[in-house]
Amino acid sequence: MLTKRQIEVCFSPALLGALSSQGKIVVMVDIFRASSSICAAFENGVEYMIPVEGLDEAIALKEKGFLIAAERNGVKIDFADFGNSPFNFLREEVQGKPIAYSTTNGTRAIHLVNDAASLVIGAFVNHSALVRWILAQQEDVLVLCAGWKDRFSLEDSVYAGALSEALLASGTFHSDSDAVSAAIELWKSMDNNPILHKEKFSHFHRLQGLLLGDAVDYCLSFDQTSIVPKYIEGKIVAEKIF
Amino acid sequence: MLTKRQIEVCFSPALLGALSSQGKIVVMVDIFRASSSICAAFENGVEYMIPVEGLDEAIALKEKGFLIAAERNGVKIDFADFGNSPFNFLREEVQGKPIAYSTTNGTRAIHLVNDAASLVIGAFVNHSALVRWILAQQEDVLVLCAGWKDRFSLEDSVYAGALSEALLASGTFHSDSDAVSAAIELWKSMDNNPILHKEKFSHFHRLQGLLLGDAVDYCLSFDQTSIVPKYIEGKIVAEKIF
Repeated sequence: MLTKRQIEVCFSPALLGALSSQGKIVVMVDIFRASSSICAAFENGVEYMIPVEGLDEAIALKEKGFLIAAERNGVKIDFADFGNSPFNFLREEVQGKPIAYSTTNGTRAIHLVNDAASLVIGAFVNHSALVRWILAQQEDVLVLCAGWKDRFSLEDSVYAGALSEALLASGTFHSDSDAVSAAIELWKSMDNNPILHKEKFSHFHRLQGLLLGDAVDYCLSFDQTSIVPKYIEGKIVAEKIF
Repeated sequence: MLTKRQIEVCFSPALLGALSSQGKIVVMVDIFRASSSICAAFENGVEYMIPVEGLDEAIALKEKGFLIAAERNGVKIDFADFGNSPFNFLREEVQGKPIAYSTTNGTRAIHLVNDAASLVIGAFVNHSALVRWILAQQEDVLVLCAGWKDRFSLEDSVYAGALSEALLASGTFHSDSDAVSAAIELWKSMDNNPILHKEKFSHFHRLQGLLLGDAVDYCLSFDQTSIVPKYIEGKIVAEKIF
């Protein structure tokens, strides 16, 4: 009998210590907005991205000629070329160029993981490509929700549920995790259409308050790209899935 | 306009650092089984309980003549008088006596909270009494799910949802927390009858494997007692709610 691959969901970076990422595929999920924006940037031709945690490092890379995408608490940092909207990365400005990238939650979550077999970026916007890529690998999967300052975020958890459901439906995955069951239950409450339920996400209201709500529908839309961004040795690079 | 009281849900002790308990009513929830067993113990007449984290402290209290309830990973510790089943605390053995109590997750969660206005024990078995008691107070509420070794536990989260729903329905509470929304959604998935859905709880299967599943239905039953256990200066004492 074949042993099935395991899937686990981590609802916040603060819970990572209680779960193992060792040797697993870690899928970093920050729906509003880092995951979705990174996918959009690669769809528009960015060469690679360097996730940086501190703004000092971002300034240093700017002085080396990098384009900079940086926000804190949803708002673009003054010296940055871009904020954290998936609509910021216009093809004519980014094609073929590298970008240094710093956000409140997403880049921090990436840097917390150091023993995974691979670290990829997951979002509604690259869902089908991500599922195909994962099914072509061998390792167990840990879905890491970036959350909001270590708090539980509904949109990340709902996507973790959508991904878990798809992987379990393939028949090659198994889970006895309460977090996976809960994520799937939360995904089911979205009636397969998270845009219809966007009012339920507190982060949606936060973005609207900052006049940044325009990208919400994009971030909640399936399959806007067939790219799976992967973090390899300090860089995020694109893998196009066919 | 009156400001409504806030309710927040913390899905794991590991997330407590990202949320404030200061000045709030903290409701500690460990459905399988500390919360439910503490309620059962007081219903059977226990005088007070001393939650102790380490087994050394439990041994020291045993030598002073205390009855000891202690388990690790679900299993009764050798030197203890009781394990962690709500059925352990028979009236003829415990009435009028103090008990020192140490469990894997529940007592640890209690000791993490040190700046709350009050710390009470919540469970399905004392739900209505707990709601009446909370509504008679003034402070905001933080529901602290004890979880399983810092992991997300579905049964604790589902009860957090049942409690949140009841408090919001009173009209005196407000929440814009994603964790509260998610907990309520998970509670709704139980069709008001968690016993019917007990197979969904991974902890139920763990307890069955240890031949400890007999108490599960009790732990998932509403209103078996009208006592709200409160943690005050190192002791848990009973407040009977009328």
